[in-house]
Order: sequence, then structure tokens, then C-alpha cells
Amino acid sequence: MKREREGLEGLKPGLMAWRDILSNRGTTLKEIGEFGLIARIGKWARCDRSVLCGIGDDAAVLRGDLKQDLLLAADMLIEDRHFRIGEATPFEIGWKAVAVNISDIAAMGGVPRHLVVSVGLPDSLSLDFIGRMYRGMRAVSRLYGVNLVGGDTNRADRLVVSVAILGEVPRGRAVLRSGARAGDVIFVTGGLGGSYRSGKHLRFRPRLKESRFLVRRFGPHAMIDVSDGVASDLRRICEASHVGAVLSHEAIPLNPGVPSVERALGDGEDFELLFCLPPGKAARLAAHPPKGLGPFHPIGKIVPKSLGVKILREGRVPRDLGEGFDHFK
Amino acid sequence: MKREREGLEGLKPGLMAWRDILSNRGTTLKEIGEFGLIARIGKWARCDRSVLCGIGDDAAVLRGDLKQDLLLAADMLIEDRHFRIGEATPFEIGWKAVAVNISDIAAMGGVPRHLVVSVGLPDSLSLDFIGRMYRGMRAVSRLYGVNLVGGDTNRADRLVVSVAILGEVPRGRAVLRSGARAGDVIFVTGGLGGSYRSGKHLRFRPRLKESRFLVRRFGPHAMIDVSDGVASDLRRICEASHVGAVLSHEAIPLNPGVPSVERALGDGEDFELLFCLPPGKAARLAAHPPKGLGPFHPIGKIVPKSLGVKILREGRVPRDLGEGFDHFK
Repeated sequence: MKREREGLEGLKPGLMAWRDILSNRGTTLKEIGEFGLIARIGKWARCDRSVLCGIGDDAAVLRGDLKQDLLLAADMLIEDRHFRIGEATPFEIGWKAVAVNISDIAAMGGVPRHLVVSVGLPDSLSLDFIGRMYRGMRAVSRLYGVNLVGGDTNRADRLVVSVAILGEVPRGRAVLRSGARAGDVIFVTGGLGGSYRSGKHLRFRPRLKESRFLVRRFGPHAMIDVSDGVASDLRRICEASHVGAVLSHEAIPLNPGVPSVERALGDGEDFELLFCLPPGKAARLAAHPPKGLGPFHPIGKIVPKSLGVKILREGRVPRDLGEGFDHFK
Repeated sequence: MKREREGLEGLKPGLMAWRDILSNRGTTLKEIGEFGLIARIGKWARCDRSVLCGIGDDAAVLRGDLKQDLLLAADMLIEDRHFRIGEATPFEIGWKAVAVNISDIAAMGGVPRHLVVSVGLPDSLSLDFIGRMYRGMRAVSRLYGVNLVGGDTNRADRLVVSVAILGEVPRGRAVLRSGARAGDVIFVTGGLGGSYRSGKHLRFRPRLKESRFLVRRFGPHAMIDVSDGVASDLRRICEASHVGAVLSHEAIPLNPGVPSVERALGDGEDFELLFCLPPGKAARLAAHPPKGLGPFHPIGKIVPKSLGVKILREGRVPRDLGEGFDHFK
């Protein structure tokens, strides 16, 4: 996930191609980046047949019983990387640590059920601070019907909050990144950009209702939550689905104060859902948006892989979509 | 878990009583200690009826399907707290991070199934280092048939490896800390003490086979893995089961080089299983120890709560058992 504003300025213009990463070129984290690291971890990992989808999606999909598959995901927040004490309240830190995990389950079309929380706590933190942080976790857990069932407590130099989440999804119905098809319409569930500056990233509400609605009524082909910026996360869908995409510059919904479409697509931590529907269903959703949910903004189309991942602005030549945030660049 | 040798010397002679902790006395981490913090987190947490056992055991027990319950646990390793780069190899760091989680599932009598791993990686680490660390995780995962299915990657100032594990156990058969009864014999699966000095804590093999054998053949009343030292972990069983215990000084199995029984009981990170069997079954296990498993050392007895937690040495007055390691004292 993107959490460091300052990291954006240092980005190289182009990300290494997927095939370069898989060919094991590059020997430092900076060279291979987060994408590259995750690809390698995927190669290092072992899995048996009970793993229906392993490393490389918002959550792993695991064979459960006859009715349900299980979803397992984890996300870690680190002081001075993902938040600063003083800027974020302890309540917000707790809220966010849990909310990002609920968002991962929503992005799979699942229902979040149970959490474990491991913390590294500096000696300097008061019990009051820690209590407020856990109250933030509890507040968002209650709101989404999730149980905090365990974890680990340790001393550390900096505050670390590491959450893992267990969810469930009807058997065979998990929405992966890999199902997008040429012709699908790309939607996003809300405005983009500026989440870090506005503080939304600390208080956001995971789009669980929208996810449940979409899964029950529309069966999205692919879905992801926007954590590293649409530019980066759309590319993940495209890589996993072996397709390309064209976004419409004019259709991108900007949050208040976001100066440009480029920033809206490059900023991370929106935690909106980015999903793909076949054209007929897309027209139906656009024509009859449900009350009290969404919004659902159509922002582009899935195209054949050969066309790449582009953004189209009226009267101009299509441009390659830039990149969002990478933790290691 | 106990991982800091130097922490031992600073321990206060007595731990706060459980009722003091629950009464909310104490306002700093140092005052309430790890026990106290976990008790409070338990009060802060929310749980519905699908949580059969929440915070306060080695893993949470969650309602699964008709045949299986689910187990969920998490453990975090932090550089300079739980290991030092240079002293521990990257392979060992990876091994240990996963092994401590497998040990948690073994302590519940379950079968470990799936892992998620969140890491905080300093820029200074080479890709080679990270690769070796993941190879350590893979080696122990393979040995125990566990799948590495996902996680999170981040930058950090110090290396953090945070693992969560999902396991399963036949419905209603999880072995809790709370089932010990007066008259039970207390066993431990191996020598105690010196794990930190000998490096065993980095390379240990979780006692999964022993756990499976015990659960199938003996149905232990209570079980825990020795992470903070027998003195501390036996107290956890006693608190949860509302019983007391008497250990036999002469029966404590010392690892080579461990200077005293006190050290053997106070040192942490043995990762042996500490479990309680009713007298008849205990006699059967002692008389016919299985080949290729164990050892199974009887070290004491569960007694009524009013007798406290004591150690008995021949020809001396029974003494209160000291304490093991607490992260925050």
C-alpha cells in the first residue's frame, strides 16, 4: 500500500516489466521493487491443492467446506512509514490497521470474520495510547461484524501494528484480479486522490456493502481495492488477466483539492474498489445505481493486451498510464 | 515469547496478581506487564458466538464446519528484540518466524495449514538476505506441510517478520489451557533452559508429531508451548484452569549447560509442549513411551488452587515458583 507521500517524487518513470522481474534480473530491492519482490516470494512459496489462489491477490483463497471457501490476508502498518504519531491519533491508527484488512476481504467479494493483531510497542507509549488504539480497532471491527480473536504483543523501537484477517466467500465465488476480459467496463466506487493529505486514509470505511451488492447482483469479472493508486492497481488487474486497459481522462472522479488526473491516479490509499463488469451488466448498473451505495463511476474499458494500459484524453494521442506507489523505489 | 536474555535480570520478584490486572490498576506497560496487557486487550475485543476460544490461549478456536474447528494465531519477530542480524542467519530468522507459529497450533492439538507473512524490510538488506530468509520459511513450511499463501511487504528501519497461521482441529477437540484438573500429572516434551544461548530457539522443531500423538491417544486436559519459560507458562495453565501446581525440583529435565533448575524454569523459548494428563493415562504414557516421539517427562502435579504454584525439593519447604519472561518488565 502507498502511505508515504514523499516516496512519490522519487519514482522512476517506468516500472520494470513483469518478464524482467520473473527472469530474476536485479539484485536489490530498489531495482526489483515491490512487484518484483512479491513475484519472487510467490516463486519461493510452497502450496498444495487446497490453495485455490495464493500470493498475488488481495487475499488468498483456501478450500473450506462444501459451501464456503476461506480468505486469508495480512497488512502491516509501521510508524513513520504509514503514519506518524501526533499526526494520526491512536484511535485512527487502530482503525486503519483493521480497515485495510477488511478492505482486502471486500476486494475478494468476501465477508470478513476474524482478526489477529500483532503489535510492537515502544516503551514510551502510555497505556492510554494503547487503549485508544485498540478502541479504534474495536470500533471498525464492530461496524463490520469482525471478531478480534488474538495476536501477539512485543516491545519495539517503533510502533508496528500487524493484522491478519480470515474471511469467507461462497464456494468458487471469490472475485480475483485475473478475470477481466476485453470489453469489460472498469468502475471505481468513489473519488480518487488526496487521501493522504485529507486524512481519509486514516478514517476510511471499507467498501464492504458495495462489494457484497456487486457480488450478489453483478458478479464482477475482477476486483481490487485501490491501495497503491489506480494507475498501479489497474496494472495489477491487467497483468493478472492478460489484458490491457484504456481509461478516459474526463471520466476520472477527482476528490476535492486534487490538482490533476495524474495525481488522482498516482496517489494511493483511496481504498475504493476498482472492478470490471461485462458491457450489459455495466449498462444496467449505470442506468439503475442502487440507493445508499456507491457511487459507481465507469472510468474506462478493458482492451486486448496488445493495446497496453493507456489513458485517453479528448483530442489527444493516448498516453501510457503512469505508475502509482512502490514501497521500495 | 521470551527472546531477550538481558530482560531476565531486570525482572521484579513478583508478578502482579491477576485480579490487580483486571481491576485496571497500573497505568504503564511496565506496571501491568504483558499478562496485564493481554487481559485488557481481551476486555477491549469484541467476539460473537462463532469464537469458541478467543484471546488468551496459544491460538483462537473458531467454529468451522461440521467436522473441523479453525485455529488462528499470530507471532511477530522484531530485529534486536528476538534476534540479531549477524548472530542469527537469515535462514534461521525465517525458520523461527514460521516455527513459532506452527508451535502455537501444535499447542492447541491442531494441524497447521496456511500462513501469511508480513515483513518490514530495511533498505540495507540485500535481496540475497531476503531470499535466504524466505527459504528458511519454506523449509520449515515444507517439513510441516504448511502453505505460504500471502502477506504484505513494507519498508522499515528494522527487520520485522510477522506471521499469522491458520490451522484446523477436529470439532470440539482443541486442547485449551483451561482444562487442567487437580490430580493431573504435568509433562514436558524435552529438556528445558539455555535455548537462547545454544541457538536452539532459532532452529527448533515444533512438537507437532507429539501433539498429534497425544491428542489422538491421550486427550490431554490442557496444553501450552513453552515460550516464556515453564514458570510463566505453567502459571498460565493454572490461571486459566483455576488450579494450582506443584513441580518436583528433581524431575525437571535440564538442557546441557543450564546451571540450575531455576534457570531452566525461567528461561524461555524452549518450545517444548507442557501438558496435563489424568493419573491413569499418565501412568500409561510413562510405562509405554512411544518410539521415535517425545521424550515425555513427568515434572509435577496439578493441585487445588488454594495450594498455589510451588516447587518442591526433597527435604526442603515448598517454595513459590518464580516467574519467566515478561516483554514489558
